[in-house]
Amino acid sequence: MGDINLSLTPFGIARSTVKGEPLSEEELRKTDAYLRASLYLCIGMIYLRDNPLLKEPLSPKHLKARLLGHWGSDTGQAFTWIHMNRLIKKYDLDVLFVSGPGHGAPAILAQSYLEGVYSEVYHSITEDEEGLKRFFKQFSFPGGIGSHATPETPGSLHEGGELGYSISHAFGAVFDHPDLIALTMVGDGESETGPLATSWHSTKFLNPITDGAVLPVLHLNGYKINNPTVLSRISHEELEALFIGYGWKPYFVEGSDFTTMHQAMAATLEQAVSEIREYQKQARSTGKAFRPRWPMIILRSPKGWTAPRDVSGHHLEGYWRAHQVPIPDVASNPEHLRLLESWFKAYKPDEVFDKNGRLIEELRELAPKGNRRISANPVANAAGKRALRLPDFRKYAIENITPGVTFANGMTTMAGWLRDVVGDNLTTFRLFGPDETESNKLGSVYAKGKKVWLGDYLPEDDDGGNLAHEGRVMEMLSEHTCEGWLEGYVLSGRHGLLNSYEPFIHIIDSMVNQHCKWIEKALEVEWRNKVPSLNILLTAVVWRQDHNGFTHQDPGFLDVVSNKSPEVVRIYLPPDGNTLLSVMDHVLSSSNYVNVVVADKQDHLQFLDMEEAIAHCTKGVGIWEWASVRPTEEPDVVIASCGDVVTQEALAAVALLHEHIPELNIRFVNVVDLYKLMSHNDHPHGLTDREYSAIFTDDKPIIFNFHSYPFLVHKLTYKRPGSAQHLHVRGYKEKGNIDTPLELAIRNQTDRYTLAIDAIDRLPHLRNRTSVIRQRLKDLQIAAEHDAFENGIDPEHIRTWTWPFAKTKAGVTGDNRAKATGIGFTE
Amino acid sequence: MGDINLSLTPFGIARSTVKGEPLSEEELRKTDAYLRASLYLCIGMIYLRDNPLLKEPLSPKHLKARLLGHWGSDTGQAFTWIHMNRLIKKYDLDVLFVSGPGHGAPAILAQSYLEGVYSEVYHSITEDEEGLKRFFKQFSFPGGIGSHATPETPGSLHEGGELGYSISHAFGAVFDHPDLIALTMVGDGESETGPLATSWHSTKFLNPITDGAVLPVLHLNGYKINNPTVLSRISHEELEALFIGYGWKPYFVEGSDFTTMHQAMAATLEQAVSEIREYQKQARSTGKAFRPRWPMIILRSPKGWTAPRDVSGHHLEGYWRAHQVPIPDVASNPEHLRLLESWFKAYKPDEVFDKNGRLIEELRELAPKGNRRISANPVANAAGKRALRLPDFRKYAIENITPGVTFANGMTTMAGWLRDVVGDNLTTFRLFGPDETESNKLGSVYAKGKKVWLGDYLPEDDDGGNLAHEGRVMEMLSEHTCEGWLEGYVLSGRHGLLNSYEPFIHIIDSMVNQHCKWIEKALEVEWRNKVPSLNILLTAVVWRQDHNGFTHQDPGFLDVVSNKSPEVVRIYLPPDGNTLLSVMDHVLSSSNYVNVVVADKQDHLQFLDMEEAIAHCTKGVGIWEWASVRPTEEPDVVIASCGDVVTQEALAAVALLHEHIPELNIRFVNVVDLYKLMSHNDHPHGLTDREYSAIFTDDKPIIFNFHSYPFLVHKLTYKRPGSAQHLHVRGYKEKGNIDTPLELAIRNQTDRYTLAIDAIDRLPHLRNRTSVIRQRLKDLQIAAEHDAFENGIDPEHIRTWTWPFAKTKAGVTGDNRAKATGIGFTE
Repeated sequence: MGDINLSLTPFGIARSTVKGEPLSEEELRKTDAYLRASLYLCIGMIYLRDNPLLKEPLSPKHLKARLLGHWGSDTGQAFTWIHMNRLIKKYDLDVLFVSGPGHGAPAILAQSYLEGVYSEVYHSITEDEEGLKRFFKQFSFPGGIGSHATPETPGSLHEGGELGYSISHAFGAVFDHPDLIALTMVGDGESETGPLATSWHSTKFLNPITDGAVLPVLHLNGYKINNPTVLSRISHEELEALFIGYGWKPYFVEGSDFTTMHQAMAATLEQAVSEIREYQKQARSTGKAFRPRWPMIILRSPKGWTAPRDVSGHHLEGYWRAHQVPIPDVASNPEHLRLLESWFKAYKPDEVFDKNGRLIEELRELAPKGNRRISANPVANAAGKRALRLPDFRKYAIENITPGVTFANGMTTMAGWLRDVVGDNLTTFRLFGPDETESNKLGSVYAKGKKVWLGDYLPEDDDGGNLAHEGRVMEMLSEHTCEGWLEGYVLSGRHGLLNSYEPFIHIIDSMVNQHCKWIEKALEVEWRNKVPSLNILLTAVVWRQDHNGFTHQDPGFLDVVSNKSPEVVRIYLPPDGNTLLSVMDHVLSSSNYVNVVVADKQDHLQFLDMEEAIAHCTKGVGIWEWASVRPTEEPDVVIASCGDVVTQEALAAVALLHEHIPELNIRFVNVVDLYKLMSHNDHPHGLTDREYSAIFTDDKPIIFNFHSYPFLVHKLTYKRPGSAQHLHVRGYKEKGNIDTPLELAIRNQTDRYTLAIDAIDRLPHLRNRTSVIRQRLKDLQIAAEHDAFENGIDPEHIRTWTWPFAKTKAGVTGDNRAKATGIGFTE
Repeated sequence: MGDINLSLTPFGIARSTVKGEPLSEEELRKTDAYLRASLYLCIGMIYLRDNPLLKEPLSPKHLKARLLGHWGSDTGQAFTWIHMNRLIKKYDLDVLFVSGPGHGAPAILAQSYLEGVYSEVYHSITEDEEGLKRFFKQFSFPGGIGSHATPETPGSLHEGGELGYSISHAFGAVFDHPDLIALTMVGDGESETGPLATSWHSTKFLNPITDGAVLPVLHLNGYKINNPTVLSRISHEELEALFIGYGWKPYFVEGSDFTTMHQAMAATLEQAVSEIREYQKQARSTGKAFRPRWPMIILRSPKGWTAPRDVSGHHLEGYWRAHQVPIPDVASNPEHLRLLESWFKAYKPDEVFDKNGRLIEELRELAPKGNRRISANPVANAAGKRALRLPDFRKYAIENITPGVTFANGMTTMAGWLRDVVGDNLTTFRLFGPDETESNKLGSVYAKGKKVWLGDYLPEDDDGGNLAHEGRVMEMLSEHTCEGWLEGYVLSGRHGLLNSYEPFIHIIDSMVNQHCKWIEKALEVEWRNKVPSLNILLTAVVWRQDHNGFTHQDPGFLDVVSNKSPEVVRIYLPPDGNTLLSVMDHVLSSSNYVNVVVADKQDHLQFLDMEEAIAHCTKGVGIWEWASVRPTEEPDVVIASCGDVVTQEALAAVALLHEHIPELNIRFVNVVDLYKLMSHNDHPHGLTDREYSAIFTDDKPIIFNFHSYPFLVHKLTYKRPGSAQHLHVRGYKEKGNIDTPLELAIRNQTDRYTLAIDAIDRLPHLRNRTSVIRQRLKDLQIAAEHDAFENGIDPEHIRTWTWPFAKTKAGVTGDNRAKATGIGFTE
């Protein structure tokens, strides 16, 4: 290993696992002609702005001024698509194409154009010379379309700008689409990415009865931008073993000679499709699911297949130089311009297009009809989308709440509702998570949908394993795969929720970024349907990761999300159980968003009954009068919070302040919908400055206890009246260790004592009393810390701390302390 | 597949690929005793705060109030480590242990303690009863240490809090450490992550002559938190094929019976070590590198091995319930407390510890001595670190700069210097990148160090492939693997640089987060050496991704980094070539940071000669007097920039303003070191408010053109005097399409015209002239856009725009327009 190995060359007569020559002479001739038409379109897109049929001799004025676009994988992708067309017609298949290789859009766009779909959705791109000219020019041209299978591409739900997600997207699309086959081209470049490398294991989570099939075609193009690919430079034995190891049955198709390659691909694809249908039939007729060794194809062909092999003494076809624009200097090099022209003409455009530039009739017949055309597949446009049947979340409310006294678990409460969401939407909703659903206290969903598991079983699985061949919960320890499945699932029109620990959601920052970009761009595409929102529930939050320590403390995903377009992102931090229910109902009802909900999974004090919770979540931000001191008067200080754990500490700070300075007027504000803080000019949820001031005041100190990094609040509010002077935000500041919750809060200055001290330090009129009260609060803090460190847990009164103010049904009592029981801050 | 498969049970007599019983009766007895001592320590850490030798009957008062820590993988890890000890002594091996399975620290800490290392570095944790008590109590206890192999853990350079990087870290550590073997436990949970799944391919990048070896032990524990693992539930045939496919030679060791398992592991490890030594000998004696099928071990043993099999009617050992604290209710359940006590005693602590709690002498002798003790391996503490020999970057300067007129490529210039950094540090510096080094214009480094490639070769590789068995550039299309290699390389004391496209660096957000946390925590550990900085160079920046479109536009990595502790992160945005050189020299000289440098790879206008560049970079932020209008007078407006492309536009805006309103005093400010914007209270690089005001003013409008999302500047400056009123930041706002650079800038309001209009709109005293000038600027903008859209490229005068002011060597001339040539904005 590691030396010259000529068996890895992609050139020559086809070598293939499956033998046979299923194509008649005529089929072979037509298939090849269709491919030539496709490839003519591909290089046309890359080079031409005029003279699309080469009716005139090619001259520099016909070329785009800046040549862009990628040629490397086009032939292999077009080749594969075209051979699938034959089988779609033969077996009436429902096929979605997922284009994994980077920048492979020309091949996809060409198919869409040849199938007539492109002209159907873009009326100005007609099937004639003028349309062809526009079709060519718009590609990788300012104001036009990109070199990936972007949202503008009919039949695409996978852009592939960032590599690595073709397989997981494909699986997401076929879950609960039992008749769908996702023909998935996988680049050998993208195969080196981590997300792709593990996504091959998705077969252990696919049920052959209720789900469709993914048929991967690993495209061994051989090269990336400037390097060979790993998988193209290992032995046949290793490569075959790898995919057997991943659980697939690999079929090889290798070579460059078209006559034999067409026959080999036709035979191999048919074998693969037949096996898929056979496995599905077996499982469906017996009702017994199993994990087949699903077929996959390894297509080894030259990079830039059909380009000139050598240009100016350097290899082009079959080498990395064919990655992007294959001959870049055609405008300045007349010899290369002639070479390009002869390359164009080698596809014999006169034979495949009529003189008006329309694909000739005998080739048009090769494509399937209507929605069977791959580029018209409705699944790629979420066409079957149905709204979820959501049970009335009010019925799951935590009842009889005494605010700040009732102690309950919001997450398990919400899980009861989620269980019934699962139960009521058994083919259109799935819950995804990297092995944390149980840990995140959502385990009650298993009553309606178990964890899908097509791996082998052991007898002990009966002991609470909750595994089943058919289920609604998808758990694999790969955030990438879970997110990729979910993206594929929602983009194909179904609904889902990803639950994950907060600290590790950064693993999929880039995937969420890309999904946001897809949704935003899709908004601009007239024919695109809205897709269900992608929902992310973050638990195991920073403030309860005291015991797991520093590596488990990172609430910064919100910063990443908040950089995305306000049109597509929403962030919610419900403070308690009923607000969590209300928020979850809202996000699962929505479309075209990425919703992020942050909620701790531990027991918490409860504050709002259901009607109050709905009202609060509807407003997104509000004054909690019952938690304020003399709310009808002008406040001396505003205590605000956003996030569940920090709300508890902020309320405790109000209590401390009231205890020690009873005459202080305190306003308490809670934020559920983070974007309320932003200006309404910048985000549709944003408050106007007037609304903002009415809640937060212009000129009073605001002590804002925030769940995440404090700078995020500053970033959202920097222009708010008085914010620079008066807004003091506390949040996580990367001060972590193995701690108790109290100690973690103290380190980061989000604890009740620090907040209370912070408040009095901002009130100059108290200055004469400040030092005494400060010291008292400090003493309390130290005593609590000491207890915590001694025993390894926070003192009882910190953990079960209760709000000393009671709230009457009639309204606000303000400082009624009658129900103050067991509170910890009394001296 | 998919049904009960009893061959996958981890219980029973050992089954192993390698046969033989290399251990004598006595060795077997002692090895088992040493393991018992280890496991006693493990459960001691999880449960006990007192009575460490169980001299008293176990009672609730001896238990920690909150039980934390993970038991699941401890036995397998201790078992493996102990068997390696024998071979270290036998062959005088240099072994580093990388602990991949999540929360496996007890096993590692126990070894360190038994080897005496722990007491050497932590003097209060003595090898006696009192020390043992402290050792137990501190684990997962507030103020103590975590349940991962954190920086506090001797012998560790891999924390494993976030899973997936054990293999890439191990490879990073053994590169250029030819005698090192990284014994790497890989969890079957972490094996499901994408980063881990692709990192197995690292063997294609390891040279058996110049690098050491990684010996992976895949620990088939069988379960994650609450699920079986994928790899433990596929057939033996698939599992074996998978690792053959990955290029390894897998050896199985499976079972639970200790007598046979000890012999099997001893024989198997010895076989693996012998093969490693044999391959190395073969390559080194012939001087001919090759890629062996490196050995790896698959250890299938019960999760929580040696815990009780069943507790209260549920499986514990060999099931997911053994993941964390195995019997959680011992404080409240007397029966379980007795069970725990008998479990402790089953390890026969009296036999393995003397009455003072010290490991008995005959067992102490099993461990290697001095630095051969795995937990004392100096590599894990970067002990061999040497500073880089850096060539004088001044000699690589772009010379004879006419500011704003000279057009040159800063990246290729810097690449010349980088080439010599490579050449001068052939065993201590590597350049890493995901197939983008050439594309990023750094290809000249190949002259001194080619791309390492141990995959197979084809003849065409001679045509500019730049591949070699031995080299200094590491390219695999996996940002995760590149980053993991780099982390391992720097944590083991060597130097490196990762180059990557800006948009896709989000892929490793979480890895960089974790590395920052490691460095920050290591600062608090007295015995930890500083490590070379981890350097990231981002090119293919957002403003030049106009043609690749929306998916390739995301400059938000800076937001992620800026959330990390100011002690460890640095961000630089050099505006031109000489500043890039100066910055790169600085970052490669530094320690203990994560340095992020953002610089475009395209040709750019140059501004500063080398002395000016050094002065500017040293200050980090400064007024460019030569680019200001009447800089000695009070400015009417401040135009500021941070980032190379946006600096060009900001300077052009100055020129436009000066052209149209000659009497306007304009101050131009450039920021290289982003943290200068932050308060010095929050970051060591931050300016004081006074310094900030001296540069930016308190009360003049500041039009700040920023490379990244504008909110980041607001986040850093929200407290600066006057910032809320006067600071107007332009930056990327998620407005992308297929564009020209100009059009992309216009969409995001970072173009020269918008900036100039923005400025005049902030100058009320110009109001009477505003509408005319505004319209003139708008007309210019529209004309330029029209040209761009027509031709697909920006007009010549936009692309080669030159600064109309000349700078004399003597100093500032301010508005000398003598050299204004070919500028585009004249009407």
